Amino acid sequence: MEKATRQQSKEHNRNLVLKTIFDHETISRAEIARITRLTRTTVSDIVASLLYEELVTEIGYGESHGGKSPILLGLAEDSRYLVGLDLSRSEFRAAVINLRGKICATTSIPVSNRSGAEALDLVYQILDKMMISGFQPIVGIGVGTPGLVKSSDGMVIKAVNLGWENLPLAELLQNHYRLPVCVINDSQAAAMGEYLYGEGHMAESNLIVINARHGIGAGIIINGKLFQGDGGGAGEIGHTVVQEGGSLCRCGSYGCLETVASLQAIEKKAGMLAAFPDSNRASEIDMETIYTAFIEDNIQIKQIVLDAAHHLGNAIAVLVGALNIGQIIIVGDMTRFGHLWLQVIKNTMSQHALSTLAKDTTIEFGKLTKDSVLLGATAVLLHDYSVLFMIRSALKHHYLGH
Amino acid sequence: MEKATRQQSKEHNRNLVLKTIFDHETISRAEIARITRLTRTTVSDIVASLLYEELVTEIGYGESHGGKSPILLGLAEDSRYLVGLDLSRSEFRAAVINLRGKICATTSIPVSNRSGAEALDLVYQILDKMMISGFQPIVGIGVGTPGLVKSSDGMVIKAVNLGWENLPLAELLQNHYRLPVCVINDSQAAAMGEYLYGEGHMAESNLIVINARHGIGAGIIINGKLFQGDGGGAGEIGHTVVQEGGSLCRCGSYGCLETVASLQAIEKKAGMLAAFPDSNRASEIDMETIYTAFIEDNIQIKQIVLDAAHHLGNAIAVLVGALNIGQIIIVGDMTRFGHLWLQVIKNTMSQHALSTLAKDTTIEFGKLTKDSVLLGATAVLLHDYSVLFMIRSALKHHYLGH
Repeated sequence: MEKATRQQSKEHNRNLVLKTIFDHETISRAEIARITRLTRTTVSDIVASLLYEELVTEIGYGESHGGKSPILLGLAEDSRYLVGLDLSRSEFRAAVINLRGKICATTSIPVSNRSGAEALDLVYQILDKMMISGFQPIVGIGVGTPGLVKSSDGMVIKAVNLGWENLPLAELLQNHYRLPVCVINDSQAAAMGEYLYGEGHMAESNLIVINARHGIGAGIIINGKLFQGDGGGAGEIGHTVVQEGGSLCRCGSYGCLETVASLQAIEKKAGMLAAFPDSNRASEIDMETIYTAFIEDNIQIKQIVLDAAHHLGNAIAVLVGALNIGQIIIVGDMTRFGHLWLQVIKNTMSQHALSTLAKDTTIEFGKLTKDSVLLGATAVLLHDYSVLFMIRSALKHHYLGH
Repeated sequence: MEKATRQQSKEHNRNLVLKTIFDHETISRAEIARITRLTRTTVSDIVASLLYEELVTEIGYGESHGGKSPILLGLAEDSRYLVGLDLSRSEFRAAVINLRGKICATTSIPVSNRSGAEALDLVYQILDKMMISGFQPIVGIGVGTPGLVKSSDGMVIKAVNLGWENLPLAELLQNHYRLPVCVINDSQAAAMGEYLYGEGHMAESNLIVINARHGIGAGIIINGKLFQGDGGGAGEIGHTVVQEGGSLCRCGSYGCLETVASLQAIEKKAGMLAAFPDSNRASEIDMETIYTAFIEDNIQIKQIVLDAAHHLGNAIAVLVGALNIGQIIIVGDMTRFGHLWLQVIKNTMSQHALSTLAKDTTIEFGKLTKDSVLLGATAVLLHDYSVLFMIRSALKHHYLGH
């Protein structure tokens, strides 16, 4: 009992030191001691062990404050790798990512409407590819998937597009690859990605990321942390009814936000236009066709696209009123509609939210284009304090051959 | 420099110990040391000083685990008092509250439509009364006010009903009473009150409190803490447009949530009914008149009230989608409409939110009736970690005669 407590305390201190090094580009042992309130001896012992594990390196000398110049430590960013996986697109996309979020290798597999067990098989295929990409050791897998996810259990509750229901994805992948796995909703992952790697976000600040694509989702960062709600579903704004008696949504309700603001809503409405070139082949109307018509100034298409923007602006106004989070970022396929689309969103938000809140709110496009989900899903693994334990156990697997 | 750091560290440790005692009904010195990771000597020294300050008392003996029975410590809950003030009603209400949130004395002053400097004068009047209520020493004032509040600055940005704009309320009261003052939005205060004193809320859990009265507001508790957003306006859901081209709202927009779901919306609609007894004196239609008609089964009034409930249910559905917070509490005058009104809110929420989220969401009435704002406003003062510093400085004022 007493021994277990001492062991826990040692683990705690080790992770505190590692986290402190992780949070700084370079840092001296003395600074670590000051920040962590641990003694210099304890810090030195832990650093010695982290150097031995090659998780940390000595980078050079810092400025002297009178005495000896202190040795600066830094995270050995290429000493371990993570695999990030984005299941939210028409092709699954994976990347090997170093400990600082640098993308080292990528690959993708077209999904071609496969779902259920077939879609899961594609997940194994693309991960297998990444495992032999030459970047070793891989110490964790982060997955961003569409649908409702309870990431505390690693469970995909429901992902309509992939035909998954109550799929214990994290457990399956953990058992198969013997690595820590984090599974989160794609919009939540995108929010983490933009927050951590998208520049301009202060530590412990708030951020809303709107993911506008086939469906509509959001990710909410509160005080620098991803807020997932009680059941993991925070940000699932796409399936709230905004138009009573509206169109049937794929969730079974009528008039959800997705039926008026998403890409699928636009595709559906475009398909009903008699004058639209492909109206006799509604199923083939996709982003490409619509985008072309939009930039060619097809008035009807423009109206449909900007109507969708208006509805999205309204949904954002509601979030502004509820949360008063001033920084809002939009990512996803629909951002291709560009600044005209964005301007309508901004105008509606300004008109529909309380003016004192709206005037302090900015809405802009994300910085990471297609990598936000990948990066965000692995970032959760890296930035969740408890996961630093997992990296250690992953190490044991590699070094001790378990 | 070195000395300042040591002083800061001492303050830090003192507050850590005090907070630990605060968070437990009774606790031994050994337990405090275990929780805070401070040495037993440090803990004993700090406890000695807290006993000397009479903030803490020795309550009795705990169970022995082999050796001597440990002495149990507890917060001296009646050693200091706070004044709570609720400015959100037709009368200002104040109470003296002990350190555990027990209400010791109350008073109220009718507001009678006074606003601006006159309303501020009433604030001083009611506080003056509380200061001589016989409960001493008073160490802080917590104020819950309607309107947009930036509580980090203690500034009332805008409170339409009270005719206040950019009023530095906390500063005014601090200078006048020489006490720490916390000013927060009334719905946010209500949320804190319900969360901390309303029973059934686990530590670090999430909660949404909807304040349904003349206006509509909300307070959001995330991981056990009040979330105020970037500018203090989180929960200001009443002024988001939910009905384009709807009625004019007192904020200047058209079709805000308040124009369809609040008590003032009901009063306005009731006033337009030809058949309603007081329709020729629309200004005198108040909660009382409407409530009487409602329980007497006046069909038109019932329809108006339940329509308002439907709109509120829709607004709650949006919050459920955005935040996936499963525990929702409704407070405010409108709760008088009782379970029929609540049932319509619940039904609409269930139909308008994603079913997987809705099924794990409960909506119920608050537990504190009219004290939630008072209690919440003082609780912010007590539970905000940094405020424990303030209690100390307040002490200095009393003991050192500053």
